[in-house]
Amino acid sequence: MGSLPEIFDSSAMAASHPLDPEDFRKQAHIMVDFIADYYQDVEKLPVRSEVKPGYLRHCLPDSAPYNPEPLENILEDVKSHIVPGITHWMSPNYFAYFPSSGSTAGFLGEMLSTGFNVVGFNWLSSPAATELESIVIDWIGKMLCLPKSFLFSGGGGGVLQGTTCEAILCTLAAARDRKLKKIGGDKIGQLVVYASDQTHCALQKAAQIAGIRPENFRAVPTTKACNFGLSPAALRRAMEEDVAAGLVPLYACATIGTTSSTAVDPLEGLGRVTRDFGVWLHVDAAYAGSACICPEFRHFLDGVELADSYSMNAHKWFFTNLDCCCLWVKNPDALVQSLSTNPEYLRNKATESKMVVDYKDWQIALSRRFRALKLWMVLRSYGVSNLRNFLRSHVRMAKQFEGLVNADPRFEIVVPRTFAMVCFRLTPPTGSRWETDNGEELNKELLEAVNSTGLAYMTHAVVGGVYMIRFATGGTLTEERHISAAWRLVQEQAEALVGTYKAKEV
Amino acid sequence: MGSLPEIFDSSAMAASHPLDPEDFRKQAHIMVDFIADYYQDVEKLPVRSEVKPGYLRHCLPDSAPYNPEPLENILEDVKSHIVPGITHWMSPNYFAYFPSSGSTAGFLGEMLSTGFNVVGFNWLSSPAATELESIVIDWIGKMLCLPKSFLFSGGGGGVLQGTTCEAILCTLAAARDRKLKKIGGDKIGQLVVYASDQTHCALQKAAQIAGIRPENFRAVPTTKACNFGLSPAALRRAMEEDVAAGLVPLYACATIGTTSSTAVDPLEGLGRVTRDFGVWLHVDAAYAGSACICPEFRHFLDGVELADSYSMNAHKWFFTNLDCCCLWVKNPDALVQSLSTNPEYLRNKATESKMVVDYKDWQIALSRRFRALKLWMVLRSYGVSNLRNFLRSHVRMAKQFEGLVNADPRFEIVVPRTFAMVCFRLTPPTGSRWETDNGEELNKELLEAVNSTGLAYMTHAVVGGVYMIRFATGGTLTEERHISAAWRLVQEQAEALVGTYKAKEV
Repeated sequence: MGSLPEIFDSSAMAASHPLDPEDFRKQAHIMVDFIADYYQDVEKLPVRSEVKPGYLRHCLPDSAPYNPEPLENILEDVKSHIVPGITHWMSPNYFAYFPSSGSTAGFLGEMLSTGFNVVGFNWLSSPAATELESIVIDWIGKMLCLPKSFLFSGGGGGVLQGTTCEAILCTLAAARDRKLKKIGGDKIGQLVVYASDQTHCALQKAAQIAGIRPENFRAVPTTKACNFGLSPAALRRAMEEDVAAGLVPLYACATIGTTSSTAVDPLEGLGRVTRDFGVWLHVDAAYAGSACICPEFRHFLDGVELADSYSMNAHKWFFTNLDCCCLWVKNPDALVQSLSTNPEYLRNKATESKMVVDYKDWQIALSRRFRALKLWMVLRSYGVSNLRNFLRSHVRMAKQFEGLVNADPRFEIVVPRTFAMVCFRLTPPTGSRWETDNGEELNKELLEAVNSTGLAYMTHAVVGGVYMIRFATGGTLTEERHISAAWRLVQEQAEALVGTYKAKEV
Repeated sequence: MGSLPEIFDSSAMAASHPLDPEDFRKQAHIMVDFIADYYQDVEKLPVRSEVKPGYLRHCLPDSAPYNPEPLENILEDVKSHIVPGITHWMSPNYFAYFPSSGSTAGFLGEMLSTGFNVVGFNWLSSPAATELESIVIDWIGKMLCLPKSFLFSGGGGGVLQGTTCEAILCTLAAARDRKLKKIGGDKIGQLVVYASDQTHCALQKAAQIAGIRPENFRAVPTTKACNFGLSPAALRRAMEEDVAAGLVPLYACATIGTTSSTAVDPLEGLGRVTRDFGVWLHVDAAYAGSACICPEFRHFLDGVELADSYSMNAHKWFFTNLDCCCLWVKNPDALVQSLSTNPEYLRNKATESKMVVDYKDWQIALSRRFRALKLWMVLRSYGVSNLRNFLRSHVRMAKQFEGLVNADPRFEIVVPRTFAMVCFRLTPPTGSRWETDNGEELNKELLEAVNSTGLAYMTHAVVGGVYMIRFATGGTLTEERHISAAWRLVQEQAEALVGTYKAKEV
């Protein structure tokens, strides 16, 4: 990263006034250059941080400074102490978990939102924050060809939350209260929540928080035969058994693009089951929802019209900096009835006119940032055409990697690629010690060897009992050359580990 | 605001690459100037937005653009369509609700966090994010002289969440699960939550979400005699009655600085009651907690050692841009037991070594931003000394306003000022039509008249049946001249409404 300009005078100003506009201007320009330099150089940094637990306590003092310190000192500490402790999600060599898709437009939108610093709990507290949010979420709903019933214009509506965890918790609370109204407020112990064993742990956590009894959480097993999608027949059986046992099916979560393997649950079949049982169906498309703005992926959402709610994370694969989760519901009243509060100090004419949305009643928190700005800037700066192109380029890079894996007989693709993630593993050489645990230890060591170089970062999952390496493309700085380099790295490390062999020919 | 530089070329680049570093640099510099100009000019804008419900739908297209648009077009739209729809929380003439305290350092920290864009769910995902958070929260804990049992070094610990609503929900879930473990998982319907009738609605909402039965929420009445603080004796009576009725007291929330009138609940007395009943005591110091870094305010926290958890919003009155809530707990295990999930794909050696904190288990969501950066930058840029000075200057401005109110016999202070908010009202002229409702309509009209000018923005509350105007200082751009101008405005509008009269002399 470049050296910092010397501006001791402005730092002194910062100390005496917390928001002098000219001081703000000078310091923020310095920070822009700092971050631009970081993006310029980030690919040279070890992707996964190499620090040891507790490293930072040795670098920083035990208590806050009594006197102000200049920005240049702080930025020097960022370079020496913070950057080494960062796992660089923005590195083009980052292929772990799912991408965290920052972009210039997303960053600019966040700047604007941070700059205005409005607390948009209700319409009146900043009408633009509420109205832009409703408009932008309708825009994305249309890009996804969601049924009109999920749009404001069709009686539904959407909201921007922080994360899928929150979106699930809010819809679960809404579903729970709607059901308890029917069956009696003392029956919470009978309510049952359903998902597949591949569903994100966010659901289980939300169920815990919402007071669903832990023993009433069903993780229905999936199989390789169904590509780890949730079987409608299995879901129906689970619900029938619960009903027979005197329990009450409440909420089911279907996933488009599971975390372990980007598996897709079949919405149409599941929707018929949930409808039959009067169960709230939520569709969690946190990762893969973005891809569905491309016509060639939209079919994965077929059946979404049977769902009650749908969410996707714009911060995962939609070029919007963390955090931003889009949630659509068919029946906003259910959310509002469960989450609204109306203290006197927030009473106002706009709310009483019922002509406005007060988003505080659509989410957990009262305070909320102006998240719509960043999403709006992303949509306008890139346009639907480029957003599709970007997503397709990531899918193309994943295909490129898949081709490389397929071309090397020592490796195998463990589950078919659906979006922009490749699940692969090194097959254990026949007769080798690696065979005893079906290659788990082998791939663990390979993964650790790859990540230890600092040249790339990938993570793992286990599906159907098979340990595999996940290679998720989607980083905004990633180019094809990073994909080939990552594959060469995997090959080199594999060779160092087991030597050159041809497993499939034995 | 100034005119925008013309940079059509860089906008074209934005369209073709979502994060080209040089393009990022150019565009982010433009945005810095846009925001600096906004701060320069914000005091000229109507503080409360004057738009009508639905205004923005008429300004923006029905769907997202297919082709990319240049930044200058978007910023022109921000000026023409978004800024008029914003209620300017950053205006020096903003005295509504509580302040939203943005600062240069807070903004810079948010930039850095948005730039790194790490998803810090566990230690490994970015060690610096976790470690800086633990360090900074210990720093603030020490600044507040919290008992050692709330600090990491004393077996407790802290976490940065988005809002107090989340902090309360997490601690409530922890308390609930700890209690259910003792009394049986099917007893959730017996659990009771307590607060005063002045407590923020966040608690009631959290209780709803956590599955506490609505009829088991006790808002214990307060009185003017106790300055609207929660009486320990009244709390004890409420708990005794519930126990007698076979219910189980679970959780109580005490407030330092209520939203309506900045009332303070007496922690020592309340702590003895909650201890006697085995109830989790949470202290919500969302607004006034900040002031307690000044020795002259610290006594309001006396008794906090009897609490189980304590929270304050750094985004309210601590110069940290939205959102940032600091939560400390004495027993992190209780949080972790209630909120942890351990999916295979997140398994890692650092977690298994138990030498690290995984903050995903301390909050609702899995994904989390690197919020510690902005708090760290605030603490270092200003230092404890200036932070105290800033807070004291706001208290001084509130005293200034209080003095002005007291000097005008037509007005009265409704509840004594404690921190930086003044609660006042125009007393209804004797014999006038305004007397019939104890001045409620009079002050409603006065408030609306003041706010309609666009020159200042204040909000209201009702305590002890009295409608009053809340005047909250604390805006980072507010100076003494804004206070005097706001008071002149109130006087002018009062005169226009009721003419010149001397209520108290009649």
